Amino acid sequence: MKLQAIILAAGAGTRMKSKLPKVLHKVCGEPMLQHVIDAAYQSDIEECIVVVGHGAQTVKNSLTKDIKTVLQKEQLGTGHAVMMTYDQLTEEGTVLILNGDGPLITEDTLRELLAYHQEKGYNATVLTADLANPHGYGRIVRGTDNGLMKIVEEKDASPEEKMIKEINSGLYCFDAKALREALPRITKENAQGEYYLTDALAIIAGMGKEVGVYKTKDYEDIMAVNAKGQLAQVEEIMRRRIAEKHMEEGVTIINPSHTYIEKHVKIGRDTIVYPGVILVGDTVIGEDCTIGANTRIEDSKIGDSVTIHHSTILQSTVGKCTTVGPYAYVRPNSHIGKHVKIGDFVEIKNAFIGDHSKASHLAYIGDAEVGSHVNIGCGVVFVNYDGKNKHKTIIRDHAFIGSNSNLIAPVIVEEYGYVASGSTITKSVEKGALAIARSHQHNKAGWVEDKGLLKTKEE
Amino acid sequence: MKLQAIILAAGAGTRMKSKLPKVLHKVCGEPMLQHVIDAAYQSDIEECIVVVGHGAQTVKNSLTKDIKTVLQKEQLGTGHAVMMTYDQLTEEGTVLILNGDGPLITEDTLRELLAYHQEKGYNATVLTADLANPHGYGRIVRGTDNGLMKIVEEKDASPEEKMIKEINSGLYCFDAKALREALPRITKENAQGEYYLTDALAIIAGMGKEVGVYKTKDYEDIMAVNAKGQLAQVEEIMRRRIAEKHMEEGVTIINPSHTYIEKHVKIGRDTIVYPGVILVGDTVIGEDCTIGANTRIEDSKIGDSVTIHHSTILQSTVGKCTTVGPYAYVRPNSHIGKHVKIGDFVEIKNAFIGDHSKASHLAYIGDAEVGSHVNIGCGVVFVNYDGKNKHKTIIRDHAFIGSNSNLIAPVIVEEYGYVASGSTITKSVEKGALAIARSHQHNKAGWVEDKGLLKTKEE
Amino acid sequence: MKLQAIILAAGAGTRMKSKLPKVLHKVCGEPMLQHVIDAAYQSDIEECIVVVGHGAQTVKNSLTKDIKTVLQKEQLGTGHAVMMTYDQLTEEGTVLILNGDGPLITEDTLRELLAYHQEKGYNATVLTADLANPHGYGRIVRGTDNGLMKIVEEKDASPEEKMIKEINSGLYCFDAKALREALPRITKENAQGEYYLTDALAIIAGMGKEVGVYKTKDYEDIMAVNAKGQLAQVEEIMRRRIAEKHMEEGVTIINPSHTYIEKHVKIGRDTIVYPGVILVGDTVIGEDCTIGANTRIEDSKIGDSVTIHHSTILQSTVGKCTTVGPYAYVRPNSHIGKHVKIGDFVEIKNAFIGDHSKASHLAYIGDAEVGSHVNIGCGVVFVNYDGKNKHKTIIRDHAFIGSNSNLIAPVIVEEYGYVASGSTITKSVEKGALAIARSHQHNKAGWVEDKGLLKTKEE
Repeated sequence: MKLQAIILAAGAGTRMKSKLPKVLHKVCGEPMLQHVIDAAYQSDIEECIVVVGHGAQTVKNSLTKDIKTVLQKEQLGTGHAVMMTYDQLTEEGTVLILNGDGPLITEDTLRELLAYHQEKGYNATVLTADLANPHGYGRIVRGTDNGLMKIVEEKDASPEEKMIKEINSGLYCFDAKALREALPRITKENAQGEYYLTDALAIIAGMGKEVGVYKTKDYEDIMAVNAKGQLAQVEEIMRRRIAEKHMEEGVTIINPSHTYIEKHVKIGRDTIVYPGVILVGDTVIGEDCTIGANTRIEDSKIGDSVTIHHSTILQSTVGKCTTVGPYAYVRPNSHIGKHVKIGDFVEIKNAFIGDHSKASHLAYIGDAEVGSHVNIGCGVVFVNYDGKNKHKTIIRDHAFIGSNSNLIAPVIVEEYGYVASGSTITKSVEKGALAIARSHQHNKAGWVEDKGLLKTKEE
Repeated sequence: MKLQAIILAAGAGTRMKSKLPKVLHKVCGEPMLQHVIDAAYQSDIEECIVVVGHGAQTVKNSLTKDIKTVLQKEQLGTGHAVMMTYDQLTEEGTVLILNGDGPLITEDTLRELLAYHQEKGYNATVLTADLANPHGYGRIVRGTDNGLMKIVEEKDASPEEKMIKEINSGLYCFDAKALREALPRITKENAQGEYYLTDALAIIAGMGKEVGVYKTKDYEDIMAVNAKGQLAQVEEIMRRRIAEKHMEEGVTIINPSHTYIEKHVKIGRDTIVYPGVILVGDTVIGEDCTIGANTRIEDSKIGDSVTIHHSTILQSTVGKCTTVGPYAYVRPNSHIGKHVKIGDFVEIKNAFIGDHSKASHLAYIGDAEVGSHVNIGCGVVFVNYDGKNKHKTIIRDHAFIGSNSNLIAPVIVEEYGYVASGSTITKSVEKGALAIARSHQHNKAGWVEDKGLLKTKEE
Repeated sequence: MKLQAIILAAGAGTRMKSKLPKVLHKVCGEPMLQHVIDAAYQSDIEECIVVVGHGAQTVKNSLTKDIKTVLQKEQLGTGHAVMMTYDQLTEEGTVLILNGDGPLITEDTLRELLAYHQEKGYNATVLTADLANPHGYGRIVRGTDNGLMKIVEEKDASPEEKMIKEINSGLYCFDAKALREALPRITKENAQGEYYLTDALAIIAGMGKEVGVYKTKDYEDIMAVNAKGQLAQVEEIMRRRIAEKHMEEGVTIINPSHTYIEKHVKIGRDTIVYPGVILVGDTVIGEDCTIGANTRIEDSKIGDSVTIHHSTILQSTVGKCTTVGPYAYVRPNSHIGKHVKIGDFVEIKNAFIGDHSKASHLAYIGDAEVGSHVNIGCGVVFVNYDGKNKHKTIIRDHAFIGSNSNLIAPVIVEEYGYVASGSTITKSVEKGALAIARSHQHNKAGWVEDKGLLKTKEE
């Protein structure tokens, strides 16, 4: 039996006050629409059809190629949106209607809804929840048999109906045949002049078929985002859910409400994540790591027992037992070995750093291959750019690069090569050789007084 | 009809345990008293009179010149405080009594109170609110007609009265004439030996005039700060209010409870503000910006589409499409152009940076004029201080300043001038010239072994 | 009368999913077990006996030597754990049973429990609390006299019993004699085959002795940690408690829920602590300081009126009126004087810095003695490491170290010594002398064009 999902993603989202189509606003680093698609696929949906409208092209561009889209040129209501998919609807099977602005929907709730719908043999099932503050939502009016009597919109609700706490999530499960029968019969004969999908429920019931109500306990699942304030609320909930999942698996998170972990990130047991940490994209962190406060890691692999303090690491790898920071900046395509020390105010870019090497402070290592057991002194600059092209520097094992020296690429320092502090190196350094390029020191006695620079203590 | 506000700001605030007068403690970057004055003026108050006492001179110094102050030498109660203003009270009109330690009062609530007071024709109106936990506040005891019967202080309240949730905010609206009549009749014939302003209500009622009660739904508005814990609570509420206002206007704030925006800051639509951001004073941020985590910006103007990561910017301007950070420090009086890159571990101070220029890492640019399309290498220092005076450096368009070089000010590098890495530049560089100031490199073979620096791999 | 505490700390804590024994997981920087021991000693307990089991040796190693431990090889229940201490139990007096995974227990609650137990002359008293959500806890079933009837575990509770909100904290007070009598009579004749300490209460009651119930209002006090999610909750509560204590004492904390202060830290009045600050270990901060956002300070002493922005300070001292940061890193064993400026991207390590000295930006000062009124320029490196050994640099009062210069240790710059920018100093500099070690500047006209580096403006 085919399972299909229609995801409504055509709305303007005027209250977002944004140029970006509403469903593309991000929650925990990913567009809301993508979260809905992910949940759908995880719950065994075989096909997703996204109804696009406002910013249609931008929304389409955000999707992977396997996702079908259907254009709703004019936004004439939810019923109208689903009508647009008519030609794509499965002949037989089950059709789930989801909202692209409801990113908190979970695989579990969708499975429960589908199971309930199918077990009960309903032709249509609406997903509902009790809200402490139902203001603004359509209310579920139940009949004497506790079945669905009608769904009434806030603006049409009587004072008694407004007291109802059970609300329409806007998510539905339909028997495909019933939906195909009902859709053409929805009219816009109402105050708003819109085609309401809720009418389909009444139409199906009118055909003598059974319509069900599935109330979820997880009211958070159905929250819709219409304004930036709600976006922040939804973000907070998803952030908490992600953190809880990691904590259950043995990650220690000092302050979950102030830790920002995107949903695809993996973290090993006994790793401690301090507040303000931001873990983004396809990041994998090993066991027994310390991820210090305010560290940002994007799309990187961090080995076991790594300690990182207050640093930024982008699209790179860090080997086990290495320490980074505080205040280090590892830029894309860097590969840092094991037992390495990358210290404060150090930038690494597009570089390989061998095991047991150190760049302890104030250095720039760019476009480089650095061996193992290498010591990069303070203030060292890998001069990779001549104003026109970028060049590569190679430093072999056990080399020692003295402080404040420049390595003008392309250049090689061979094994055990030693660069004296303050040297600008333009030619390669042989194995075990000292390279030095600096002037002799002259001390000019009395110069400070002669220059009038002798401050009195009172100054 | 004249509208006057008396703001009580004489209290010691003993529980604050501070040398600073209570009303000068800051909430979201501004003294509590100033927030109250701002709300008063926004609600059409024409004149504010601040009653000062503890730390009178310090409080006065914090005020703009248009604010009148009256000294209450001894703190003998709220009635006494208002008595001190007797000579300044308007003859006719309305007098609002506000508290300098209640910074959450809003323009809207004051307008509502004033409108209610005036429409009903009351001679005095007390502002009240229902509190879940009313402990410590004076309770509003209403008569059979639901009007004010009396206000009873916590310590004088009967067990039944203590159950009352409606509390006295300590904010009042008075008809000026009624207040002028009532004030001299307040006595200190009570257990505390203090002049209570609440007595004025009873006196006015006793004169056969009507006294009203206006209950606000916004109980937060009337919170008073008596201790540092309350200061933090009030700060949290104001922080949330400010964030909500920006989100309504289309700003995306990832975690509003951990974003610190002062109330005069302006932010354009579709700008994303990450957690830990601190925006202070007279800061204006354009549209479509990314303000990365832990960025602090004070009194600065940031153009559209600017990306800032984890940096500090003080009293400066940044042009559109420029990127800053992570870990950059822009100090006062810096003017950074469009499409500029200010990278990691870079300090800019009192400098102009032209469009499309770059200082990508580890550099100090101080007291300088830098043209457009200039490249400032890594480790470059603008040496602006000779131990006695500061001097200026000028770098013209398309110049290239090699890594780890020093520019000893005053000095000029003309258009397309090129400074070789590792050079200390003391004389100006002509257009298109290479300036070089460094020693030749000597490689001494075998030196490392000779010096005994040849570590065995095991070390 | 002897007061003894038995602390149960043998559990595996499987749900923590950790290699570390459960009681050693840290809350606000200290193992849970240590918090319990601290509370016990503060409440006049004379002797603590810790029952260890899982990870026994690791737990023992975490304890100070004065703490006795007893091994519970197999974990056969709480009664069994206490049985293991039988030989150590006092003959006469009072025995408190505490849980090593309940770090929020306070001195005050323990004192109240002890006082209640002793005043009432009970032979055993159980500590209880009302929980909104009692799920998972043993319930307190009271008799008609409101006394303890029985304690029923969640899994054995009837539906009515499950409605009971009052739960067993697992903390008890016993008369030593009664406990010694009861312990041998506890059996494992129950569904779990475990020795339950709760049975001791029934046994003591069965001996005709009185058993009491002391219900605390502070339900947080008895929270137990079984999973990482609970660890984060308990951390949040302790963090809030610590912050409240400091606020009561006059410290201003902008956002207490995002400020991380360990319990032994001391902070002076009128110091302002910004969000994201982490204060660790044996740290003492003076009055009137500004501790800027995201500053981390460990085991350091900070004088009065110090301003620190976004920096890291470890195991060091900072004198009064000094400013540090943003983005400074002060490593262990640094002693920074009064009125000093340590600026951005500066690392200090194992160094003494005299009063009124400055290192304003981008510098490394390691293994050094720096006098007063010294100016360390930008990019200066104290070259303390030659690849084999570390050496010391001495800079005397009023010296001026020019930008990007290297001081090759061991070396001395005497009073008023002046090092020219860009010099590498290998020999000591006499009082008032200028040391210079750099090459003359050559300007090669037309070089940029010759090299083909003359970019057209369009590039």
